[in-house]
Amino acid sequence: MKKIFSAFLSIMLMTSFAGVNHTHAEGDPDSSENVDNIIFLIPDGFSASHATNYRHYKGEYTIFDETLVGMMQTTSADNRVTDSAAAGTAMATGVKTNNEMLGVDPDGNELHSILKAATQHGKASGLVATSTITHATPAAFAANVLSRESEAEIAPQLIGEVDVLLGGGKDFFLPEKEGGHHEDVNLIAEAEELGYTFIENRDQLLGADSGKLLGLFAGEGMAPELDRDEAVEPSLAEMTEVAIESLRNNEDGFFLMVEGSQIDWASHAHDSPWILKDTEAFEAAVEAAVAFAEEDENTLVVIAGDHDTAGMSVGGYDEYESNVDILHGVTATGDYMAEQLDENRDNIADVLQTYANIEPTDEELSVIAEAEEPNIAINRVISERAFVGFTSDAHTGVDVPLYAFGKHSEKFHGFLDNTDLPFLMAEAMGIDFDPYDNVQEGGELPVTATNSPTFALFGLVLALMSAGGLVYFRFTRKVKEE
Amino acid sequence: MKKIFSAFLSIMLMTSFAGVNHTHAEGDPDSSENVDNIIFLIPDGFSASHATNYRHYKGEYTIFDETLVGMMQTTSADNRVTDSAAAGTAMATGVKTNNEMLGVDPDGNELHSILKAATQHGKASGLVATSTITHATPAAFAANVLSRESEAEIAPQLIGEVDVLLGGGKDFFLPEKEGGHHEDVNLIAEAEELGYTFIENRDQLLGADSGKLLGLFAGEGMAPELDRDEAVEPSLAEMTEVAIESLRNNEDGFFLMVEGSQIDWASHAHDSPWILKDTEAFEAAVEAAVAFAEEDENTLVVIAGDHDTAGMSVGGYDEYESNVDILHGVTATGDYMAEQLDENRDNIADVLQTYANIEPTDEELSVIAEAEEPNIAINRVISERAFVGFTSDAHTGVDVPLYAFGKHSEKFHGFLDNTDLPFLMAEAMGIDFDPYDNVQEGGELPVTATNSPTFALFGLVLALMSAGGLVYFRFTRKVKEE
Repeated sequence: MKKIFSAFLSIMLMTSFAGVNHTHAEGDPDSSENVDNIIFLIPDGFSASHATNYRHYKGEYTIFDETLVGMMQTTSADNRVTDSAAAGTAMATGVKTNNEMLGVDPDGNELHSILKAATQHGKASGLVATSTITHATPAAFAANVLSRESEAEIAPQLIGEVDVLLGGGKDFFLPEKEGGHHEDVNLIAEAEELGYTFIENRDQLLGADSGKLLGLFAGEGMAPELDRDEAVEPSLAEMTEVAIESLRNNEDGFFLMVEGSQIDWASHAHDSPWILKDTEAFEAAVEAAVAFAEEDENTLVVIAGDHDTAGMSVGGYDEYESNVDILHGVTATGDYMAEQLDENRDNIADVLQTYANIEPTDEELSVIAEAEEPNIAINRVISERAFVGFTSDAHTGVDVPLYAFGKHSEKFHGFLDNTDLPFLMAEAMGIDFDPYDNVQEGGELPVTATNSPTFALFGLVLALMSAGGLVYFRFTRKVKEE
Repeated sequence: MKKIFSAFLSIMLMTSFAGVNHTHAEGDPDSSENVDNIIFLIPDGFSASHATNYRHYKGEYTIFDETLVGMMQTTSADNRVTDSAAAGTAMATGVKTNNEMLGVDPDGNELHSILKAATQHGKASGLVATSTITHATPAAFAANVLSRESEAEIAPQLIGEVDVLLGGGKDFFLPEKEGGHHEDVNLIAEAEELGYTFIENRDQLLGADSGKLLGLFAGEGMAPELDRDEAVEPSLAEMTEVAIESLRNNEDGFFLMVEGSQIDWASHAHDSPWILKDTEAFEAAVEAAVAFAEEDENTLVVIAGDHDTAGMSVGGYDEYESNVDILHGVTATGDYMAEQLDENRDNIADVLQTYANIEPTDEELSVIAEAEEPNIAINRVISERAFVGFTSDAHTGVDVPLYAFGKHSEKFHGFLDNTDLPFLMAEAMGIDFDPYDNVQEGGELPVTATNSPTFALFGLVLALMSAGGLVYFRFTRKVKEE
C-alpha cells in the first residue's frame, strides 16, 4: 500500500507541476538566441548549510551568493533521499530512477543524456571530477549500467564518447597486471589509438595541447584538497580551465560537467575542514567557469548540488554559536591525521596540535583513543569545536540551492525538480532532447512507463485532475473557511 | 581581535554586496507602478528542510514551491545564529542589531520600521501571530525595547500604532488584578477608548465589523494547531482573512505582517507533528494572502522565515529514509501527551497509542519513562520513527528560502540579506524609508555608527576597496593559476 501511494505520488509530482515539459525538449538550432556552451558544475552533497558555513569560513560573500537563482528538489524514483547515481541520472537525463541505478530508468531501459544530445549536435564534451571519473555523478552523463558499483564496466563507455576526461580512477582503465580492473584490456592504450592524449600529473595537464584528453591523476579518487600534493595532482580549477581551453576550439560549442566530488565524502565523514577546503576548491572552479562565460558571452553556467549529505547545520549542539574560523588552522583531513597515530594512539595530542592547531581536552582525548574509527572521532571533535552539527552519516532529502550565470540563466529561476535541468539546458542550447531517444542502439524503443501511449493518457488525466484540484482548492478555500 | 575581525566583517558584508541601498529608500508615491498593499508572512524558524518535509507530509507541491524566488541570510549584528528579536528587527527596520534587542540598533537607538513608514504614508496596518502579539517577531514591527523580554512594555507601544492586532498575549494588556502584567492600567479598555473593537474568541472574530481590531485569544501564546479548540480560538488563516477584510477598506492601502509563530516553538521541542501541522496552518494563511493578491492585483506578498530552528533534516539517523507520512496519525503535541501521563508514567504505551498511533518498543518506553522532560522524549521517539533529524534545540544560521508573489515580487529574486527586505518593500510601495528617521520623537538624531558622516566615508572607502578587491580577484585568478 505504501509503495502504491509512493508510486502514485511520484507520478503526480512528475505530472502536476507546471513549468517544464518532462518528455522532451525541441529546439531551434539556428537561433542566435542559443548558447553555444554549457558548463554544469555539481558540488556533490552541497546544500544551503554548506553555502552558509562556507561564506562564514571565507569571511565574505561567495560566488554562490552572486549566482543564486532558486532551489531544487532532489528525490529519486524510489526514495525521498536520493543517492548520487539516481541524482546524477535525473540531472543528466531528466528521468528519475532508483537509487544505485545509473543512466537507466527504473525498468532498466537505457537513457540518453544531455551530454550525448549535445555531442549529437556537433558539440564537444567533457567530464571533470575529483573522484574516479567512473564514479556515479560523472558516469551518469555518459554511461548506462544497472549498478553504480560497476566502475570497470563504465570506463569503456566513456572512451570515444567524451572528448575530455579528467579525474581519478586510473585503475578502472588498466589491465589486471598493471593493478587495474580489466582482464587483458588496457583502455588507456585504446584511448590513445582513438586520438586521446593521456596525462597523469599536474605538469602534463598544464602543458597539454588542445584536443582529446584523458587525464587520470590517481588510481582511485584524487586527494582531498587539504592533503593534495601540488607537485602531482592538479586542482579542480586547473582541470576545469584546461578542459575549457581544450573544448572551446570546437566551433559548434561544448558541454562540460565538472564535479566537486569530495564535498560529499567529507560530509559523510563529518570532516568540516575537508568540506570547506574542498568547497573552496570547487568555488575556484566555478569562478573559472564564470570568468569564461563573462568573456565568451555565449555560455550558460549552471551549478547545483545533487543532494545534501549529512544534514550539516550552521551552529548546533544546543548553542547559539558558529566558529568555523578555527577550521583555517586545520591542515589535514581526519583520515590523514588518523594515519599519523601510533598503534596504541599515545600521540593523539601531538597529532591534533600539529595538524588541527587544537589542544584536546581529556574528554576529547579519551573519545578519540577509544573510538572504533579514530578518523571520524577526530572529525567530530573538530566539528563540535567549530559548531558544525550533523544529523546523519548518510544523505538527506532537503532541497538544495540552485545557481546559474550567463545567457539563459533566468530559465532556472524559482523552484525546480532535478529532472528539469537537462530539458532547460537543451532549450538554452536550442537542441532537441529526448531521454528515450536511443539513437545509439538504432533499435526499437521498448514500451516503458514513460513512453507508452496508455501511460501518457493516464498521465494527462492525472495532470488535468491535479490542475483542476488546485484551482478548485484555491478558489473554494476562502469560502469554506468563512 | 576576534571581535574586531567580526565587526570589520559585518561592515564589509554590509557595504560590499551589490543590489540594495542599505541607508534609505526613496519612492515616487504617485507612480501607478506602486503596490497599494504588502502582506509579509513570517514562518518563524522555517528553513528549506521544513519546506521539503512539509511537501512530503502534504503529498503534493505546496504554496512555497509555487512562490520560491531566492534565499536569505539571517545573521544578527553580534551572532551568526540570530534570535527572533534581532531577526525581526532586521526584517522590519533594515538594520542588524544584537540578539535579544528589539526595534533598536546595537547602541540602543530606536529604529523606524517599514510598518510605521507605511502608516506615515496613510496606509492601514496589522499584526497577526499565534504567539503573544507582544512576542519578538510581531513586536519588531511596532515597538522599541532593549530586551525582547519586556512584553508588558511592548503592549502599550502597539495600541494606537497598529490598526489590527490579532494573536495571544491578553495578560500583557491587563492589570495585575485581572491576571495581567500592569499595575493599574487596563490597555484593553484604553484601546476601546481609542476606537478598537476588542474580541477574544473565534466567533467574535468571524463576526467582527471592519475597523480597528484588538483580538487577544489567549492569556499567553495561542494553542498549537494540533491542540487547538476550534470553538474558542481561530486559525491563523482565519485571523489573516479577517485582518485583510478589515484593512482593505483603507483607500491608501495597508501593510500586514502575519507570523506562523509556533513552527519555531515546535522545532525547539523537536515535535515533528506540531511542526508540520503548524506549517499546514501557515500555508493556509499564505494561500489566503495569495488569493487576495491575485484578486486585488495591487498587492505584494512576501514570505520568509526569520531563521532556522533546530537544524532539522529530511531523513537522518544514518539511514536513506524519510517517513513523515506517519505523522498524519499523531493528533496531539508532545506537551499535551506528556500532560496525559500518570504521575508514575505507567500509561506511556496507552498515551502513545491514543495520540500518536504507535506501539512503542520497550526501549522507547524506558527512554520516555526515565526522561527528565517526557514531552521532549516523546517528540524524539516520534521524530526518529519519521526520520526527522535535528542537530540542536537552539536556532541555526543556515540561509532560509525566500518566497514572493504578486506585483514587484521579482525584486526579491536571488540571494538577499534579511536587512534588504524592508527597503525592497518600500521601493515596491513607492514610499521613502529611513530606519533612522525618528519622526515619532521629533528630536535630534543621535550620531550613530550608521549615520555619522565620518563612518559613511569610512564605509564608502571600504566598499570601494572591497569592490576593487573583487574585480582584481576575478581578473587575476585565471592568470595566477596558469
